[in-house]
Amino acid sequence: MSIPDRIETRISKLFNIRYPIIQAGMVWVSGYKLAAAVANAGGLGLIGSGSMKPELLKEHIQKARLHTSNPFGVNIPLLRGDADKLIQTVIDEGVNIVFTSAGHPGKYIDQLKNAGCVVTHVVPSVKYALKAESVGCDAVVAEGFEAGGHNGIDEITTFCLIPQVVDSVKIPVIAAGGIADGRGMLAAFALGAEGVQIGTRFAASEESSAHPNYKNAIINATDNSTVLILKKITPVRMIKNEFALKVLEAENLGATKEELLELLGKGREKAAIFDGDLNNGEIEAGQCSGLIKEILPASIIVNNILEEYYIAKNKLA
Amino acid sequence: MSIPDRIETRISKLFNIRYPIIQAGMVWVSGYKLAAAVANAGGLGLIGSGSMKPELLKEHIQKARLHTSNPFGVNIPLLRGDADKLIQTVIDEGVNIVFTSAGHPGKYIDQLKNAGCVVTHVVPSVKYALKAESVGCDAVVAEGFEAGGHNGIDEITTFCLIPQVVDSVKIPVIAAGGIADGRGMLAAFALGAEGVQIGTRFAASEESSAHPNYKNAIINATDNSTVLILKKITPVRMIKNEFALKVLEAENLGATKEELLELLGKGREKAAIFDGDLNNGEIEAGQCSGLIKEILPASIIVNNILEEYYIAKNKLA
Repeated sequence: MSIPDRIETRISKLFNIRYPIIQAGMVWVSGYKLAAAVANAGGLGLIGSGSMKPELLKEHIQKARLHTSNPFGVNIPLLRGDADKLIQTVIDEGVNIVFTSAGHPGKYIDQLKNAGCVVTHVVPSVKYALKAESVGCDAVVAEGFEAGGHNGIDEITTFCLIPQVVDSVKIPVIAAGGIADGRGMLAAFALGAEGVQIGTRFAASEESSAHPNYKNAIINATDNSTVLILKKITPVRMIKNEFALKVLEAENLGATKEELLELLGKGREKAAIFDGDLNNGEIEAGQCSGLIKEILPASIIVNNILEEYYIAKNKLA
Repeated sequence: MSIPDRIETRISKLFNIRYPIIQAGMVWVSGYKLAAAVANAGGLGLIGSGSMKPELLKEHIQKARLHTSNPFGVNIPLLRGDADKLIQTVIDEGVNIVFTSAGHPGKYIDQLKNAGCVVTHVVPSVKYALKAESVGCDAVVAEGFEAGGHNGIDEITTFCLIPQVVDSVKIPVIAAGGIADGRGMLAAFALGAEGVQIGTRFAASEESSAHPNYKNAIINATDNSTVLILKKITPVRMIKNEFALKVLEAENLGATKEELLELLGKGREKAAIFDGDLNNGEIEAGQCSGLIKEILPASIIVNNILEEYYIAKNKLA
């Protein structure tokens, strides 16, 4: 089927992109290769700086420029000890699209806006959406309980979160969590979103820097393969494996935050996602993993999502 | 705006109703008044037999007939000790639309089909949808994690559940969980559903037999007011109150199933929903409660949902 040249929403205009499809910034997954590939396909690619030191982030930004002339952005988790250095790197390198998450953007918003950045913050509830708007964010990503990786404590699902955030703020809303195909994109738009942020489907792309074992874990997942655990620390959604089930068991027995921190240790994200250790690592992935069946180039993924979107839209009409 | 006379899907055809909007069968909430009001408005009303003895169910069925000439149905939770008596009552009274939940329909399907019933089963995952289809159910309600009251253990959200169930079964799928308005209905259809089952919004209707305190608790809820607890027994979503927070605390400390059963005791659904005890009862309600702002007649609710549906649809186009 023929796909229109653009989908115009406030989000596509804000980022000057053809399609309001945003590839989530993901640790150990989304470097310059993935971000540039999505940008070239007409979406917004995000370099995930959560697993990068400032020097490496700089390198990825410069390489992304070599691979695309389209806009791309950087996601910065604000709880990182050196978040200020990542932000300075982004500003120094002239990136003008920044997604902030896992923290409060108020501390950095003036610095970013003064540097000419469009700032979008990721929120799990109406309260934080209002807060992001009030400090001057240009848009919010409203991310539901079904999302992979770090998650909010209120467990609000995409179906319930999107319309309530849309009703509460004036800035445009990007839906995230549970969206893996064009049907999900259409559903998010029906709920009032003007863009979608998609993580897991791009994590299983060819340009994703994740380990093949990790990508295959997504492809092999079914509807009930993921679980949200570590709620006493920071909730994280991951595919059930030896490690996740061990945590789940400890949690059922009432493990304290300290006990869970000990059980968690360090480096489990890298272990699963980058090094492919599917037993001991955190296989961070969204609940929509069951919808993902193939590892494809990012450009094909964008194209397929758009095709699915228009097929679903025609069916509705 | 003008609302078309019918919305044709396999679900509206299956039940011979004008609009594929199903009012969920809810304990202490949906007697003949609510079911008949929804039927008269062109949707499918369900008498919730979960809080009724067979004699009372018989009375409600007969009264529903006096108040509507349109189709209506009965929801039967199969885990009830006397489920067979409820089923016999439904058959004896000539009701030919039965929704089964909380259990496996295989045991009763032949009896119901031989009596001429259309049988729809409520499922929380792909596995149970396939099972329902394989024993001969005519449709499934795929109910997400955000739904009020009893819930599945896999915590699969409506956004992720609907497309995966739609891709897995040939029978039509009704979406449930998180749907409180026409935007939600449109989103569910975008994901492939052919009908929606709506609980909480009708629980807060004028014809709902619930206590005014309970209805007001829904009206006053925000996006993060509900919580899914009692996971070691049967997961239940309810509005946070003194009782729910007590359970949550016990669960965080690792309470066993036996300890939770003791804490739960008996009669808490009735206490909150029918008697209005908002401190000690289970205020069962969906996560979409935050979207519900007014107690209205069921006919207005149906009409508003349809208006919202068409407004959202026009916006998409």
